[in-house]
Amino acid sequence: MDASLLRALEAVVGKDGLVSQPTRLVPYESDGLAILRQRPDLVLLPRDTGEAAACYRLLHEAQVPIVARGAGTGLSGGATPVAGGVVVGTARMRDVLELNTEDRYARVQAGLVNASLSRECDPHGLFYAPDPSSQRACTIGGNVAENSGGPHCFKYGATTQHVLGLVIVQHDGTVLDLSGPIVDPDGYDLVGLFVGSEGTFGMATEVTLRLTPKPPVVETLLAVFDGLEAACDSVTEMIAERLEPSAIEILDQLTIRAVEDSVFAAGYPTDAGAVLLVEVEGLEEEVAVTSEDIRAIFARHPVLEVRSARDPEERLKLWAGRKGAFGAMGRIAPDLYVADACVPRTKLAEMVRATIEIARERGLRLATVFHAGDGNLHPNICYDRRDPDEVERVLDAGRAILERCVDAGGSLTGEHGVGIEKLEQMEYLFSEADLAAMCRVRDAWDPERRMNPGKLVPLRACGEIRAAALPS
Amino acid sequence: MDASLLRALEAVVGKDGLVSQPTRLVPYESDGLAILRQRPDLVLLPRDTGEAAACYRLLHEAQVPIVARGAGTGLSGGATPVAGGVVVGTARMRDVLELNTEDRYARVQAGLVNASLSRECDPHGLFYAPDPSSQRACTIGGNVAENSGGPHCFKYGATTQHVLGLVIVQHDGTVLDLSGPIVDPDGYDLVGLFVGSEGTFGMATEVTLRLTPKPPVVETLLAVFDGLEAACDSVTEMIAERLEPSAIEILDQLTIRAVEDSVFAAGYPTDAGAVLLVEVEGLEEEVAVTSEDIRAIFARHPVLEVRSARDPEERLKLWAGRKGAFGAMGRIAPDLYVADACVPRTKLAEMVRATIEIARERGLRLATVFHAGDGNLHPNICYDRRDPDEVERVLDAGRAILERCVDAGGSLTGEHGVGIEKLEQMEYLFSEADLAAMCRVRDAWDPERRMNPGKLVPLRACGEIRAAALPS
Repeated sequence: MDASLLRALEAVVGKDGLVSQPTRLVPYESDGLAILRQRPDLVLLPRDTGEAAACYRLLHEAQVPIVARGAGTGLSGGATPVAGGVVVGTARMRDVLELNTEDRYARVQAGLVNASLSRECDPHGLFYAPDPSSQRACTIGGNVAENSGGPHCFKYGATTQHVLGLVIVQHDGTVLDLSGPIVDPDGYDLVGLFVGSEGTFGMATEVTLRLTPKPPVVETLLAVFDGLEAACDSVTEMIAERLEPSAIEILDQLTIRAVEDSVFAAGYPTDAGAVLLVEVEGLEEEVAVTSEDIRAIFARHPVLEVRSARDPEERLKLWAGRKGAFGAMGRIAPDLYVADACVPRTKLAEMVRATIEIARERGLRLATVFHAGDGNLHPNICYDRRDPDEVERVLDAGRAILERCVDAGGSLTGEHGVGIEKLEQMEYLFSEADLAAMCRVRDAWDPERRMNPGKLVPLRACGEIRAAALPS
Repeated sequence: MDASLLRALEAVVGKDGLVSQPTRLVPYESDGLAILRQRPDLVLLPRDTGEAAACYRLLHEAQVPIVARGAGTGLSGGATPVAGGVVVGTARMRDVLELNTEDRYARVQAGLVNASLSRECDPHGLFYAPDPSSQRACTIGGNVAENSGGPHCFKYGATTQHVLGLVIVQHDGTVLDLSGPIVDPDGYDLVGLFVGSEGTFGMATEVTLRLTPKPPVVETLLAVFDGLEAACDSVTEMIAERLEPSAIEILDQLTIRAVEDSVFAAGYPTDAGAVLLVEVEGLEEEVAVTSEDIRAIFARHPVLEVRSARDPEERLKLWAGRKGAFGAMGRIAPDLYVADACVPRTKLAEMVRATIEIARERGLRLATVFHAGDGNLHPNICYDRRDPDEVERVLDAGRAILERCVDAGGSLTGEHGVGIEKLEQMEYLFSEADLAAMCRVRDAWDPERRMNPGKLVPLRACGEIRAAALPS
C-alpha cells in the first residue's frame, strides 16, 4: 500500500487505529465461516463517524476495496476480505450515544456489543429484543449488516424490525444521516434497505434502535422427548392452537450430547431424542393459562420430563445448553458447517427428515438446532477440514439442503446472510430479472463495486446485466 | 396518442380495459387530494400480471409516463397524473389467488379491496391487520404504494410489516417475482424497499400478505372528556404504565360535532371536548386486567363518561364515529386539508397545542383526529377552495405544521405518503446527500423517470445530482 496513503490514514485514526503487522492481521482473515480465508492489506479502527468517513474518502480516491467488520462472529463469510484491500472495524466505536427511556429508543455506535445494550437499559425495565446466540460478542453493526435473528425473534421480529434509524458512511465518504427515531420513514425506506445489505452499500456507524419493555412475567418450559418427531409435533400443535410463546427452540440428540459433554452442560438427559425449550411471557394470568395449555400438549406426546422456571437464574440454566450449543459442537469435530434453512412452518417436520437423509447418504454427522417457531433450522454438519473428501461431501450436502429448502417454498438464509457461502444458491432461488434488479440497486450505492466485493449478489449476474442496467 | 399504440394496448386489455372518452377520464384526474387535478391521456385496466407487463412494455417503448392507481383514496396526490400520460388501474385485478390458513398468508391481486381480505379469512379466525379509515374502498396495491397505516397499526405495525412478497412489473415490462411467503428475504430487501415507493418503481400486481389470528377477546372502551388535554394526559399515563392496547384514538370537539351531525352519528355527547377510543385484546384474563388499569387512569382525570363493549356489533357502534370522521367533515366545509404529522409520542401534547395555535393565527378551523398511540396526528383544516386567500392560508398552515413537527424530531408523513403534497418539505427534512441517495435508488428502478413522475423525491434534488449519480 502506498506510503503516503498509509500516512494519511494514520493521521485520521491515530497509531492505535491502524493495524498493518502481518501477525496482527491474522484474526481478520475470516469471520465464523473459517473454511475460506484471505488476509487484508490493512485494518483501520476509526473512533466515530467522522473518522470512518475520512477513511472511506481516502480509500475511495485510492480505489481500494473495503470490508466493514463487527466482531467477526458471522457465519456466511460476510466479513472475509475475499478481494483483499482494507478492513474497517468497529472495535473502537462502542458508545451508547443516547438512551431515551420515555420514547424507548437508544442511539448507539455500531461497534456496541449486542448484549451490552440490554444490560444498559435493564434498570429502566427495557431490553433490546434480537438475541443472536453470539450476543455476548457480536455487534449491533454486524447485526444490521446481516439482519440477525435469534430465539426471541419468533415473537419480536429480526433486527430490521428494531432499527429506527442509521448514520451511513457511503463508498466515497459522504454521510447519510437517517437517524430519526420515528418508525415509518418519509421517502424511500433506505434504512430498511440497508439492513441486511451485508456491507455492500457502505458502513453504518450509528444505529437508532427500538427498546422493548420487559414482560412482567416470563416462564421457561423445558420438555424432554425420546424422539425428534414428538418435539416437532408438539410445536405444530402449539401453532395450530394459536398459543403464542416468545421462543420455541429444539435441540436434537447429537446436540444434547455435545452440550452435556461441554462447559455448557445444562443437565439435559443424554439419552433423550430431543429437548424442546418454550418461553411464555406476559401478565401473570396470561402466562399461567398459556403455560397450562402447552403442558397439556406435551402430555399428549411421549414426553419424558418437563421442567419449568420463572426465576431469572433458573431460567438461564434451562437456556444455558441452547445458548452454548454452537460452542459445544466444537467438541464433536474440529469443524462445523452451519446451514441456515428457513421453510414455511408446516414444512418443518418434512424438512427435518430430508436433512437427516441428506447427511446419512453422504456419511456425515448431523447435529440440528431449530428456531422451530420460525421454521428456521440450523443443520450443523460436523467435519474435519483436513479431509478433502469430507469437505467435498459437506459442501455437496449444504447445497442439497438449501435446494431442498427452496423447493419447499423456503429461503436460503433464515438469519445468517448470503455472504460468500450462499452466493451460488442465489441463482437457484432468483431469476435473472430479480438478480439484475439487486445489481442495479447495489450499483446505486456503490457504482465502482468496492464495498465488500464478492458478497451477496453473484458477480456473474451483475457482470452480465451491467451494460443494460446503467444508462450511459 | 398514436393510433397504432392505442390498437396495440387495446389488443392487450380488450375494449373494456381501455378508457379514453374525456368524460370517463374525469374520475382519474386526482386522488383524495382534490386540490390538484390533471387529466390523463388514457386509462388502462389490465386483468393480471401478464396484461400489465405487456402494457408497461408498450408504453416504455413509446416513452409515455405511467401512473399506477388503486381506488384513488390516497390523500397526498400519489395517483394524480401530474405529467399526463397513462393511468394503469387495478380495478379488474381483485382476486384472492391463494389463501393458506395454516401458514397464515394470502396471495392476492393488487386491486383487492382491503376490507375484502379480512372478510375472506374471517371464517378461518384470521384477519388482515392494517386498517386505514378508507378500508372499505382502498386497495391492497394502494396500501403497498403508500405503506398505509390505520388505528390498529399501533399494535400490529403498518403495511410494510405485513407484506411477505410481491410480483412487480418494472418500467420496461420485465417482471420480478418476489412472492415467496418467507418473511426475511434473501439478498436485498427489495420487497421492503418497494413498499412505500409510491409507484415510482413500477407497479405491484400481486401481493403476498401475512394474516393474523383474531384475538380471543376484544374490548372497546370509549371515554368522554371535557377537554383535549385530559384525553392526551390519559394516553401518556397508559404508555408510561406500559399498558398495551391495540388502538388508541382521539377525536377533538369539532370532529365530534361533525360526526354527530352526520350519518356516522355514534352518540358522542356534542359538548364533549374530546373522545378517547381504546381497544384491548387478548385472553380473557389479560383483557380484564388491562381494561381495569385503563379505567383507573380515566378515573384520575375529569372524565365525563366511560362506555365499553365486547360484542362485535356494540364495538362497531363505538367505532362508527371514528371510522366516519373524514366523511363527516365534508359537512363542516366544502374542502378538507388532511395533515399527517408524526412526532415522538412524548411530544404529542406539545404538538397538539402548536397546531391549534397555527390554525388560530391564520383564522382557520381545525378538526383533529389522532392515532395517539403512534404519535400520529391528523389536523384537518376545513376550507373552501373557491376562496383563494383561504387556500393560501391553508397551504401556509400545512407547511408550518409539518416544519414544527420535523423540528420536534418527527416525520412528514405518518401514513399518507409524500406524493405531491409534501415534496417541498422533503428538502426541509433531508440533506442533499440523503435526497441524492434516494434519487440514485429511484434511477436504479426507473432510469428514464417515467414511473409516476413528480412524486416523492423533489425533482430539483434529482436533477442536480443526476450527472454525479450515474456513471457514464
